[in-house]
Amino acid sequence: MTALDAIAGTACAGTLYGIGVGPGDVRYLTLRAAALVRDVDVLAFFAKRGLQGNARGIVDPLLGPGRSELRLEYPVTDEIPPEHPSYQKQIACFYEESVATLAELLGQGKSVGLLAEGDPFFYGSFMHMWRRLNRDFPIEIVPGVTGMSGCWTRANAPITWGNDILSVLPGTLAEEQLTRRLAETDAAVIMKVGKNLAKVRRAVEAAGLLARAIYVERGTMQAEQIMPLSECPDGKGPYFSMVLIPGQGRRL
Amino acid sequence: MTALDAIAGTACAGTLYGIGVGPGDVRYLTLRAAALVRDVDVLAFFAKRGLQGNARGIVDPLLGPGRSELRLEYPVTDEIPPEHPSYQKQIACFYEESVATLAELLGQGKSVGLLAEGDPFFYGSFMHMWRRLNRDFPIEIVPGVTGMSGCWTRANAPITWGNDILSVLPGTLAEEQLTRRLAETDAAVIMKVGKNLAKVRRAVEAAGLLARAIYVERGTMQAEQIMPLSECPDGKGPYFSMVLIPGQGRRL
Ligand SMILES: C[S@@+](CC[C@H](N)C(=O)[O-])C[C@H]1O[C@@H](n2cnc3c(N)ncnc32)[C@H](O)[C@@H]1O
Ligand SMILES: C[S@@+](CC[C@H](N)C(=O)[O-])C[C@H]1O[C@@H](n2cnc3c(N)ncnc32)[C@H](O)[C@@H]1O
Repeated sequence: MTALDAIAGTACAGTLYGIGVGPGDVRYLTLRAAALVRDVDVLAFFAKRGLQGNARGIVDPLLGPGRSELRLEYPVTDEIPPEHPSYQKQIACFYEESVATLAELLGQGKSVGLLAEGDPFFYGSFMHMWRRLNRDFPIEIVPGVTGMSGCWTRANAPITWGNDILSVLPGTLAEEQLTRRLAETDAAVIMKVGKNLAKVRRAVEAAGLLARAIYVERGTMQAEQIMPLSECPDGKGPYFSMVLIPGQGRRL
Repeated sequence: MTALDAIAGTACAGTLYGIGVGPGDVRYLTLRAAALVRDVDVLAFFAKRGLQGNARGIVDPLLGPGRSELRLEYPVTDEIPPEHPSYQKQIACFYEESVATLAELLGQGKSVGLLAEGDPFFYGSFMHMWRRLNRDFPIEIVPGVTGMSGCWTRANAPITWGNDILSVLPGTLAEEQLTRRLAETDAAVIMKVGKNLAKVRRAVEAAGLLARAIYVERGTMQAEQIMPLSECPDGKGPYFSMVLIPGQGRRL
C-alpha cells in the first residue's frame, strides 16, 4: 500500500458509493474515486443498448480482470423523445428495477460503486437512484470534476472572472427562453446540446454572442473536438457536447 | 511505480501547471493533480499574510520533506475593500511581480506547479497568471472539483434535476440584483458569501427561497459547517462560505 492508497481509503460493506468519474480523461478521477473503483465489491454503471457505457469506458484503464460488474441498461434509446410520457414511464420503471437490484446487493452486505459521469449531483441519473435508496442504506457521494470544467479547460477558456454571473442552461429550453437567458448573463454553459445544436446556435446568435461561443464535443475524451460555434457544421451533435460563453469580467 | 502512477504521468521541464486542488479534502484531488503536486520542481501557491495558504494546506498530506516551494504572498488583506482603486492597483502589481518570478523559474527549465483552489478556470487567481504567461510558456491546466461540487455533496443536496437552470451568483452583487436573479432561476449557488452574508440572506428571503437555502462553510474541510441559511448566525461568514438553492426539476 502506497501513501496515496492510505489517503484515498477503502470501501465499506453494505454501502452505496456514487462515484463521480469526471469529464472523460481517466486522470481526472479523484483519488477517492479511483480507490473506490478498484475496491468496491460490485461496480455498477448505466449504459445505452449496444454501447459500452460511457462512465464504464472512462474507468477501464483502472480495472484488472475478474471484477464483478452490474450493467444497468436503459430500455429506451433515441427512438422516443424524452418529453414523451411513454419515455418517462419506461425510464421510471427502469429506475425502480435498478434500485431493487442495487438494494439486494447492498442487503447482502456488498459494497457497490455506481459510476456517474462528471459530478454525481449535477444533472445525473445517479440522483434518481440516490433519492430512492438514501433512507435505507449508507451512501457516500464522491464529487467529480464536471463535464463543463473539463470542456473549458480544454478550450483554454477561463469561464468566470471577478464578479461574473454564470448561467448553466439546458439546451432543451425553448429558443426564446435560451436567447433571453443568454442575453442577461455574463458567462454561460449550455448543456445537452446534441440534437438541439441548430436551435442553440440560433439562440446564441440572437443574443449577440456567436463571436464568443465555443463548441466542445467529448471534452477530455479521445475523440474531443473544439471549435468556434460559428464554424461548427450543422446537424446533430453527439450527446457529449456543450457550448461555452466565457465571461469578460475584471482582469487584474 | 504503481499502475496509477503510470496513468497519472509526470511533469515536464519548463512547463507551468495550473493545478486544481478541489474543494478542501485531499482525497478530492485528481490523479493528475496529485501526481504533479508530488513531481513538479517547484510548488507555488498564493497565501494571505500570516496564513499558511489554503491550497497549500489542502495538499500538505501529499508532500514529503525537502520540497522546493514558492510562497506568493498577497500584499493586502481585508483592510482595504476590493472595490477600492488602491486595492486593485496593489493586486495588479503583486500579480506582475509573481509572474516575473514564475517566468524566471520556467526560463531556467524548472517545472512549476501553481496550486488553485477548486477548479483553476472558475473564478481563480490562477487565471491572472495564466493570461500573462500563456503566450510565452507551455501551460497545462488540471481541472479540479469545484468548491460548489464539494459543498452540495456534503450538504447531501443534488443541485440540478432534469431541465433546471443553475445560476452561479457572486455574493458581491447588489442586493436588488441578487434578489431578481434568484427569483428567476431554478437553482442557485451564491459564491463569495463571507462579508456579504447579511445581504445575501435578505436577498434570498426577498426572492422567497429562504426555506430551501443551505449555508455551507468550509465544505469538505476540517471545520466544515452546514446548516439552513435561516438558522445561520448573523455576522461575517468566513471566506470559504457559500449558499446553495437546490433545484426542484423533474424527478423520474
Ligand atoms: C446528464 S448531463 C450529466 C452531467 C454530468 N453529471 C457532469 O457533471 O458534467 C449530460 C450532459 O453533460 C454535458 N457533458 C458532460 N461531459 C461532457 C464532455 N466531456 N464533453 C462535452 N459535454 C459533456 C453534455 O452537454 C451532456 O449532454
Ligand atoms: C475566488 S472563488 C474560487 C473558486 C474556486 N476556483 C472553485 O473552483 O471553487 C472563492 C469562493 O469559492 C467558494 N468556495 C470555494 N471552496 C469552498 C468550500 N470548500 N466551501 C465553501 N465555499 C467555497 C467561496 O464562496 C469562496 O468565496
